[in-house]
Amino acid sequence: MALMTPAEYKRSIQQMKVNAYLDGRKVENLGENPVTRTVVEATAKLYELAADPRNEGVMTATSHLTGEKINRNLHVNRSREDLEKRADMALLTSQTLGTCNYRCVGCDSLNALASITTEVDRNKGTDYNKRFNNFLQRAQTNDLAVSGAVTDAKGDRAKRILEGDPDMYVHLVKKKADGIVVRGAKMHQSGAFSAHETVVLPGGALRKGEEDYAVAFAVPNSARGITYILQYNALSAEREKAEDIYHLGNPEFGQRETCLMVFDDVFIPDENIFLCGEVDFASGLIQRFAKTHRMNCGGACKVGFADIIIGAAQLAAEYSGIEKAAHIREAITNMIRLSEAAHACAIAAAVKGREEPPGSGVFMPDDLFGNVAKISTAHGFWQIMALAGDIAGGLVVTMPSFKELKNPATKGYVEKYLKAAVPAEKRMRITKVLQNWTAGLHGPGTWHGAGSTQAQMISLHRAANIEEKKRIAKKIAGIED
Amino acid sequence: MALMTPAEYKRSIQQMKVNAYLDGRKVENLGENPVTRTVVEATAKLYELAADPRNEGVMTATSHLTGEKINRNLHVNRSREDLEKRADMALLTSQTLGTCNYRCVGCDSLNALASITTEVDRNKGTDYNKRFNNFLQRAQTNDLAVSGAVTDAKGDRAKRILEGDPDMYVHLVKKKADGIVVRGAKMHQSGAFSAHETVVLPGGALRKGEEDYAVAFAVPNSARGITYILQYNALSAEREKAEDIYHLGNPEFGQRETCLMVFDDVFIPDENIFLCGEVDFASGLIQRFAKTHRMNCGGACKVGFADIIIGAAQLAAEYSGIEKAAHIREAITNMIRLSEAAHACAIAAAVKGREEPPGSGVFMPDDLFGNVAKISTAHGFWQIMALAGDIAGGLVVTMPSFKELKNPATKGYVEKYLKAAVPAEKRMRITKVLQNWTAGLHGPGTWHGAGSTQAQMISLHRAANIEEKKRIAKKIAGIED
Amino acid sequence: MALMTPAEYKRSIQQMKVNAYLDGRKVENLGENPVTRTVVEATAKLYELAADPRNEGVMTATSHLTGEKINRNLHVNRSREDLEKRADMALLTSQTLGTCNYRCVGCDSLNALASITTEVDRNKGTDYNKRFNNFLQRAQTNDLAVSGAVTDAKGDRAKRILEGDPDMYVHLVKKKADGIVVRGAKMHQSGAFSAHETVVLPGGALRKGEEDYAVAFAVPNSARGITYILQYNALSAEREKAEDIYHLGNPEFGQRETCLMVFDDVFIPDENIFLCGEVDFASGLIQRFAKTHRMNCGGACKVGFADIIIGAAQLAAEYSGIEKAAHIREAITNMIRLSEAAHACAIAAAVKGREEPPGSGVFMPDDLFGNVAKISTAHGFWQIMALAGDIAGGLVVTMPSFKELKNPATKGYVEKYLKAAVPAEKRMRITKVLQNWTAGLHGPGTWHGAGSTQAQMISLHRAANIEEKKRIAKKIAGIED
Amino acid sequence: MALMTPAEYKRSIQQMKVNAYLDGRKVENLGENPVTRTVVEATAKLYELAADPRNEGVMTATSHLTGEKINRNLHVNRSREDLEKRADMALLTSQTLGTCNYRCVGCDSLNALASITTEVDRNKGTDYNKRFNNFLQRAQTNDLAVSGAVTDAKGDRAKRILEGDPDMYVHLVKKKADGIVVRGAKMHQSGAFSAHETVVLPGGALRKGEEDYAVAFAVPNSARGITYILQYNALSAEREKAEDIYHLGNPEFGQRETCLMVFDDVFIPDENIFLCGEVDFASGLIQRFAKTHRMNCGGACKVGFADIIIGAAQLAAEYSGIEKAAHIREAITNMIRLSEAAHACAIAAAVKGREEPPGSGVFMPDDLFGNVAKISTAHGFWQIMALAGDIAGGLVVTMPSFKELKNPATKGYVEKYLKAAVPAEKRMRITKVLQNWTAGLHGPGTWHGAGSTQAQMISLHRAANIEEKKRIAKKIAGIED
Repeated sequence: MALMTPAEYKRSIQQMKVNAYLDGRKVENLGENPVTRTVVEATAKLYELAADPRNEGVMTATSHLTGEKINRNLHVNRSREDLEKRADMALLTSQTLGTCNYRCVGCDSLNALASITTEVDRNKGTDYNKRFNNFLQRAQTNDLAVSGAVTDAKGDRAKRILEGDPDMYVHLVKKKADGIVVRGAKMHQSGAFSAHETVVLPGGALRKGEEDYAVAFAVPNSARGITYILQYNALSAEREKAEDIYHLGNPEFGQRETCLMVFDDVFIPDENIFLCGEVDFASGLIQRFAKTHRMNCGGACKVGFADIIIGAAQLAAEYSGIEKAAHIREAITNMIRLSEAAHACAIAAAVKGREEPPGSGVFMPDDLFGNVAKISTAHGFWQIMALAGDIAGGLVVTMPSFKELKNPATKGYVEKYLKAAVPAEKRMRITKVLQNWTAGLHGPGTWHGAGSTQAQMISLHRAANIEEKKRIAKKIAGIED
Repeated sequence: MALMTPAEYKRSIQQMKVNAYLDGRKVENLGENPVTRTVVEATAKLYELAADPRNEGVMTATSHLTGEKINRNLHVNRSREDLEKRADMALLTSQTLGTCNYRCVGCDSLNALASITTEVDRNKGTDYNKRFNNFLQRAQTNDLAVSGAVTDAKGDRAKRILEGDPDMYVHLVKKKADGIVVRGAKMHQSGAFSAHETVVLPGGALRKGEEDYAVAFAVPNSARGITYILQYNALSAEREKAEDIYHLGNPEFGQRETCLMVFDDVFIPDENIFLCGEVDFASGLIQRFAKTHRMNCGGACKVGFADIIIGAAQLAAEYSGIEKAAHIREAITNMIRLSEAAHACAIAAAVKGREEPPGSGVFMPDDLFGNVAKISTAHGFWQIMALAGDIAGGLVVTMPSFKELKNPATKGYVEKYLKAAVPAEKRMRITKVLQNWTAGLHGPGTWHGAGSTQAQMISLHRAANIEEKKRIAKKIAGIED
Repeated sequence: MALMTPAEYKRSIQQMKVNAYLDGRKVENLGENPVTRTVVEATAKLYELAADPRNEGVMTATSHLTGEKINRNLHVNRSREDLEKRADMALLTSQTLGTCNYRCVGCDSLNALASITTEVDRNKGTDYNKRFNNFLQRAQTNDLAVSGAVTDAKGDRAKRILEGDPDMYVHLVKKKADGIVVRGAKMHQSGAFSAHETVVLPGGALRKGEEDYAVAFAVPNSARGITYILQYNALSAEREKAEDIYHLGNPEFGQRETCLMVFDDVFIPDENIFLCGEVDFASGLIQRFAKTHRMNCGGACKVGFADIIIGAAQLAAEYSGIEKAAHIREAITNMIRLSEAAHACAIAAAVKGREEPPGSGVFMPDDLFGNVAKISTAHGFWQIMALAGDIAGGLVVTMPSFKELKNPATKGYVEKYLKAAVPAEKRMRITKVLQNWTAGLHGPGTWHGAGSTQAQMISLHRAANIEEKKRIAKKIAGIED
Repeated sequence: MALMTPAEYKRSIQQMKVNAYLDGRKVENLGENPVTRTVVEATAKLYELAADPRNEGVMTATSHLTGEKINRNLHVNRSREDLEKRADMALLTSQTLGTCNYRCVGCDSLNALASITTEVDRNKGTDYNKRFNNFLQRAQTNDLAVSGAVTDAKGDRAKRILEGDPDMYVHLVKKKADGIVVRGAKMHQSGAFSAHETVVLPGGALRKGEEDYAVAFAVPNSARGITYILQYNALSAEREKAEDIYHLGNPEFGQRETCLMVFDDVFIPDENIFLCGEVDFASGLIQRFAKTHRMNCGGACKVGFADIIIGAAQLAAEYSGIEKAAHIREAITNMIRLSEAAHACAIAAAVKGREEPPGSGVFMPDDLFGNVAKISTAHGFWQIMALAGDIAGGLVVTMPSFKELKNPATKGYVEKYLKAAVPAEKRMRITKVLQNWTAGLHGPGTWHGAGSTQAQMISLHRAANIEEKKRIAKKIAGIED
């Protein structure tokens, strides 16, 4: 089967019966609701990009299962070049969408499963890898949009899993003849409701006794028992109220839309289960997911966003006639520096990638550089926001509604007093883009995406070869033990 | 006359006919429109605070004109203690409102005028100071809310005032027998539409030939020819749509509401004119305004906001059960450090204040510490936002609507999965407060308030005694010239 | 008795038999050894400054014990104005010396003892305060240089006091009829060997069972059993080798010279003992010491150093002809900003100071601002070093010896190729000053002075009223418990 | 001919008559003078590393001129893999030496010449490339140590080249039948006196009329008219005085030793001239040099140093028993993060390298990532120093001489009071290493190496495709021009 077209994707989503709620009401039509529509449009755009011959090799890959051309979001990385292309895909989609591509977590989850199932099977004599490959091949053949789900609700963090409400982490509640029943909730799910399937992983390391929580599986979007409760904030309201999407900061694709994904006793058939009880592999699974995801999230996705911000800030400076000022040039250059330092980490993570486990054919990026990518971006993105906000000027905060441009009582004033080196509307439009980036949810969003910085600091400490550095230092010091 | 009560203030505003537009429509009733209402409520709260005996001396002062108790926002600082109390007032109002107090720019403009008119009169033989005192006494006696207006529209910054559209800066267009007619627009006016009067200053230094732009005056809110075009953004839309203000990030007082204030041939009678053509004093006037305003804005107002953020972040940590983690304590401590370093600058600016000009009785804070206060806050506030966003967790980005708590289909899920050490609603409420601070317009808002950092860096360079430092360094180096 | 003159001080030091070692050899004459001489000269300069009428009130104070004029280094702060003057003294001495004034720790230790002995006596019925006042009056009357000693050797930090070698903390080893015998060592003692007396405090909080470690006392420089082992580093060697002190980075006063001060069974007579066994007051004593010391160290001493650095950097820029470049001006302004933000914290700490304990007449600075002062400086000083190093240029690293200016083979070349807007020698001299600051021991020295930043972060967290901030945040959030 | 051995190198240097001055005296024997000896030892170590089979391919390469195995320092990069190996070599030598490898600038200058001479020849019909290849082949065959010289004396920077003393920039003063005579001086030459040859490049872009300054050439170390005036500072003095090099911070290889290299009418034969008058290529030459050099300097050399610092800091923490503290782990992790972010930039610069000019066979790293590498390190190294200084503790500033360990009067005290989890000597040794890094000349040295950050910011702005970012931003904004 060929790659899905944007139109086919939209049709397929219409046909699924998704149980999704936004601002206290059921979403009747994902593609028409002004908020959820942005997710559908962004996902459709990904199908469009994959069909564009200019993106061949970046948005597409060759399946190692079938030899067919597939969407790279469904590809298991088989080489360092694959890892580089994977990051390039994240960069391209961010530059194009200015928001989440909604398939990133899914793609990285698939890679983590491809790797860990090989390892579990080798150690436990299970056949998860075969099941996984069957699922993957089906997804590839039908060109499905696959989301990934990782973070559990957790509740009171002072309590371990088994101490609190057992449902705060997704877990097996019943074994059946041909599958299992799971309960719990995954938080912060980016656009999951508009994917065809979701791949669910345990959210962290597990101990003996917590076997019921060591479950990984795939589940269709419209499975019985799944409810999506969507995020809602000021930008949601603004979009709902907007008469013209071009009055918004990211007209077509909006902000990142997430949801709480509730599993209320959902049945998972055996063929979709890729881990079930092997607590000693939960940590490895999540670490491998984090490995690829931090590379992409920190060193590619946010770099694409930064490109938009830098371009918009430069335009805003030109529109105001201040682009030649020394401190403006310095601010632009610093944004580039911060963004490209993270970008370099993704490239390094890719080219220093390794097959993992050996013999699996699955390539994982270097963990050290992947974590540095994400930490650099977590700090750097706030700085980029600050620099862009500096250039954007006070108007980024105080701009009036675009509707004033149609209001006979104010139109003349706004056109007159907000024009600068370009007409008012153009200046307002680029200012609105910058408002979205400097005064939206991007600061904490970037910080917490792919896990918070604290988690990456721990990973980085583990990934670094500190013993080797001690050896080098002792040699210089002339210390012999 | 006694201080105005909140109810009297609200009534007085209702009686004024304010020509204000929001999102393309005229605001019919400032106190009822959900957006403008927040400004009215915040201003009313200031009257309430002034009436509270616990705030005696902070919110009130003794008029040097009448010897009566007045609102400190209408007071001219007569001592270092006055400057300290002025900063304390800014701190208290920020802690109480969590948004702009809307009278800060007005207060600092009045102080700048009290100082500069003395100086102009001495040099030019004018009688601006008498006019100003008459105006001030009237404002004090009637306990008026007085706003201040500084920043011109400016347009293309690559052009000097006289090169571009002459209206981009507020200026005199006609002299009349008993006054002048002015035209132009002031941007970024915080809540000006809900004040009784606005004091207008030139926005920057002026040169010979630009006499028409050297105008300072007072003007009532409802003067003919004045139009307010209000800011509009996502938070405006959210508030308009909200069925319950407690679903918002700052329920009662909202975000800072600003406007473009257009002067379309507005007549200003002589008695309200405090500068008219004296180009060589424009720079001094704006510098004295900046002096007090940067102290208050950087070292007091934002410190009060930081107190809210720190308190909310600590609560969020406790509600999630993570408050004992080392990195959480470190983040809290760093927020305090950043905020109190700016606070210290305001205290230092006040206690190192000086009478200016000598013999005027008007006290101005130290310019060096005032500028350091604002620059420290401009950088520090972004860091505080980042630290608070870290503690708040991903939920600060992805939280669903409060309406889900009433939605039978989702209520149970939200209550179950968003509870932690406290019930879901409490956690959502504090998270919403943090969303307002870490994902609202506060980053660039704080940066640009009281002028952008670049302006303060220039002022700071000028305020510092670099020659004295060179002398000290030469002595250490043993260099004799 | 009048204040001591510099000459009298030098004579008095010659007469003491100090047991001091530098680079493996005994120092025979403190005033002649090129390294220890800098400490004697710096201390003598303090006596000179105190005698200068221009410094009246800053370098001197009026004794509350005798009503006589005394050196402010021996004064107990009796008001907020005293605290301000105390910080002004630290600023002045740093600007003048460009190195440690060597009496700062002593002064702050005396203040801590004045406060805590009042409190111990009230609680325990002891008479430490009287003893202390007798000692202080004697020091004031004879205008003695008094050093302070706080930090113990500690050894393996993973062990508590009683677990490891008992001597790693100074402690009582024997009680005698008329006094006690103490053993241990204090580290990082700035110039202690050139003071007349040293006041010794316990280095940290103590628990029940550790009574022998709760000792505070005064001891003369030449007491039997005391050995000073001086620091030795590259700058020591450079000074030893220098034929002309004007070839050095701080010609007259050198770098901060410290020592390990060993107490090998030293007898302390009862009248010099100010704490002995009261473990529950050790923490309070050290906290009060830290309170004043962090204010002075962070917000005044290092600000004086920064003034030298800023002045030298500005001169270096002018000497190279680059002072008008935008990034140079920005660097200078940033140095001022960083330095003055710390300075503001000292001012705020002083003006928000309080009598402690109430009724004691002893004034202590505000702990919150004092800690912020030190933390701001700890970070800021590294940044100032970096900015100064940027302006200084590569020459700050690569400059040749001043002796080349006398070497016939190279003199012409150096004069020709190192001249710029000024002759080579002048440029080399200011570059050498900057080398001392950007490439000496100042980074870690500033960081660890008055305790490391980690200690101050803990103090700051304790000093901040977080409960009040929570209350404010709850009010904004509409949360009622 | 085979690669040179360390012994052969040392012999060859002894045979050259180098005119070098240190601290006002002629250096009679480079290999015996305690200061210059470190440069000879470091250079010899490079020959040793090249001979070690474990470093095959990193320290060696295959000459494209002869097909022979050569030292990589003499290799022209012919592929991206070469660029990666080039950076790996810089990393390895820094980790091994803890100081400059003294051949880095030479290597990068050779690469710049290989590239630009191709281009000049194509445009001007010259035969510089052939000359250059002849020189290079001779250097490769004899395995010569080749230094590079770039930065001119410059003098007063407010003046252009032709306005001031003409000698402030190296330039042609006379044309002869078979060569040219040059005059001027190059500053900051790392170890040039211990190389066999130096390759000299113009220090910056040149304009028409400045043809005499557009000279590039090779010159032997002992050429008539060349004088080396060596840097001299505190660390020089310490080394001169040291009785045992293991009392020093980098015992064997010392600090980076630089010199002022004076050209007093030096004759350069035609065959050694690679540019002569082509002003329009001066800028390209220096930019290509900067391109490779910033990659290596910022993203590899300093990363190797950071590895030593991190290892030493970790050891210091373990030796003091504090390595488990949360803030120590965080500091270690942050050092890794900062260092590896720069490392990633070098890797990215290499893998994104390109043939330049096309058809030349010469590969240059990507300029954008190379500049980001250096800027990241310039800022990051100061932070690493600060973090290491934090961990090292006050002892890094106040430690006594190692000679006290042999002094009967103090030996017992030092052994007792400086021991912790390890004996005192071991702790002192690692502390001395950290003193070298946190309190030496590394801050400004790192900042200014490969040009100051300001130069790199300009290069970065030029290297970034800002127009493309504007295009992306306009698309998101819906702006059509």
